[in-house]
Amino acid sequence: MLGYPTKKKTQPKVVNMANLGMTLESDIEATNQYYLTHNIAVIHKKPTPIQVVNVSYPARNKAKITEAYYRTPSTTDFNGLYKGKYIDFDAKETNSKTSFPLANVHEHQIIHLNDVNNHGGIAFLIVGWKIYNEYYLLPFKDLKIFWDESRNGGRKSIPYDFFKEKGITIPFSYQPRLDYLKAIDILLGQV
Amino acid sequence: MLGYPTKKKTQPKVVNMANLGMTLESDIEATNQYYLTHNIAVIHKKPTPIQVVNVSYPARNKAKITEAYYRTPSTTDFNGLYKGKYIDFDAKETNSKTSFPLANVHEHQIIHLNDVNNHGGIAFLIVGWKIYNEYYLLPFKDLKIFWDESRNGGRKSIPYDFFKEKGITIPFSYQPRLDYLKAIDILLGQV
Repeated sequence: MLGYPTKKKTQPKVVNMANLGMTLESDIEATNQYYLTHNIAVIHKKPTPIQVVNVSYPARNKAKITEAYYRTPSTTDFNGLYKGKYIDFDAKETNSKTSFPLANVHEHQIIHLNDVNNHGGIAFLIVGWKIYNEYYLLPFKDLKIFWDESRNGGRKSIPYDFFKEKGITIPFSYQPRLDYLKAIDILLGQV
Repeated sequence: MLGYPTKKKTQPKVVNMANLGMTLESDIEATNQYYLTHNIAVIHKKPTPIQVVNVSYPARNKAKITEAYYRTPSTTDFNGLYKGKYIDFDAKETNSKTSFPLANVHEHQIIHLNDVNNHGGIAFLIVGWKIYNEYYLLPFKDLKIFWDESRNGGRKSIPYDFFKEKGITIPFSYQPRLDYLKAIDILLGQV
C-alpha cells in the first residue's frame, strides 16, 4: 500500500549535543575522540561520580538504578597521555567580558592539579570566553599565582587581559574542534 | 547516674568494607590513598560510568537520580601519575588454582592498554590469586602475547606457573595494603 512514509523507528528522538559544538565539554570530548582515532594521544573524560543507593532488576541481566545521587569529584574531569607525558586538566567557561572568576574553580581541583604538577605531570585549565569565542590554555603555575593571591585577600578573578597577553590560544576549527595539544606543544617549547 | 555506658551515637551502623581488605579493588583504593597522602603518587580509580535518564528534585539544590543504567567503560579502572610517568591498569581476581582465564579481560581494556603502551605509558594488570593470596603485576606486553595467542586459536588463559616464574610479585602488608609501585620500580629497573 502506498502512502506517506511512516516515522522511522530508528529516528533519534533526542538531538545529540556532542555533534553540535554546543558546550566546551562536548567540544573537548570530540577532540579527544579525534586524538584517539588519529593515534595522537589517549585522553578521556572521567565519568561523573554517582553514589548508587538502590538498584532493581526489571529483567534478567538488566540492572536499573532507581535511587542515586551525584557526588563531588575528587579530581579533575580529564586526564591522559600525550607523547609519554601525563596530562590533567579541567575545562571552564565564562560569560564575563573582563575577568574569569576563580569561584569557577573548586579547591579540590586546585589540590589535585597541584599534586599533578608536583609529580611531573602537565596540569592546566582550558578556559573558554563565550562572548569572544576564544579559548585559552592556562598553565597551573599561572592559575596557582592568582589562586594564592585570592586566598590572601587579593582579587578573586583573573583579568581577561592576562589571557590576551600571557595565555596560550587554543585554535577552534572543524576537526579537531579544539586543538589544545597544539597549545601544550607551545607550553613544552616543542614548536 | 552510674551504669553501663550507653551505645554511642557515632558508632557506625555499616561496616566500611574499604578497611577490611575484602576486595582487591578496595585494597588498591586504600593503597592509592596511602600513596596520595604520603606524596608518592597520584593514582585514582575512575568512577563507574552511569547513564542518567531521570532526575527529580525532592528539595532545592538536591538532585535525586531516579532512573539510570550502568554503561560499559571504555577504559580501565585506574590511572595516574608516578615519578613523572603515566600509569594505567586494571585489577582482576581469580579463584582458579592453575590458570588466569582471559575471559576476565575485556577487549576494550586490551585496546586501551595497547594505546597506553604505544604512547609511552606504563600499562599492566594487577592479578590476584585468591586461593594463594598472591598478587602479581602483569605487564601489558606479556598479557598481549597470551591475548594474541588466544585470538589465534591458542589457549584461553595464562598458566599460574607463568606468574610464578616470570611475574612481578606485589607485596601484601598492612600499609600500604598492596604496594604495587614496588613492582613498577622493578619493571622500570629502578631497584
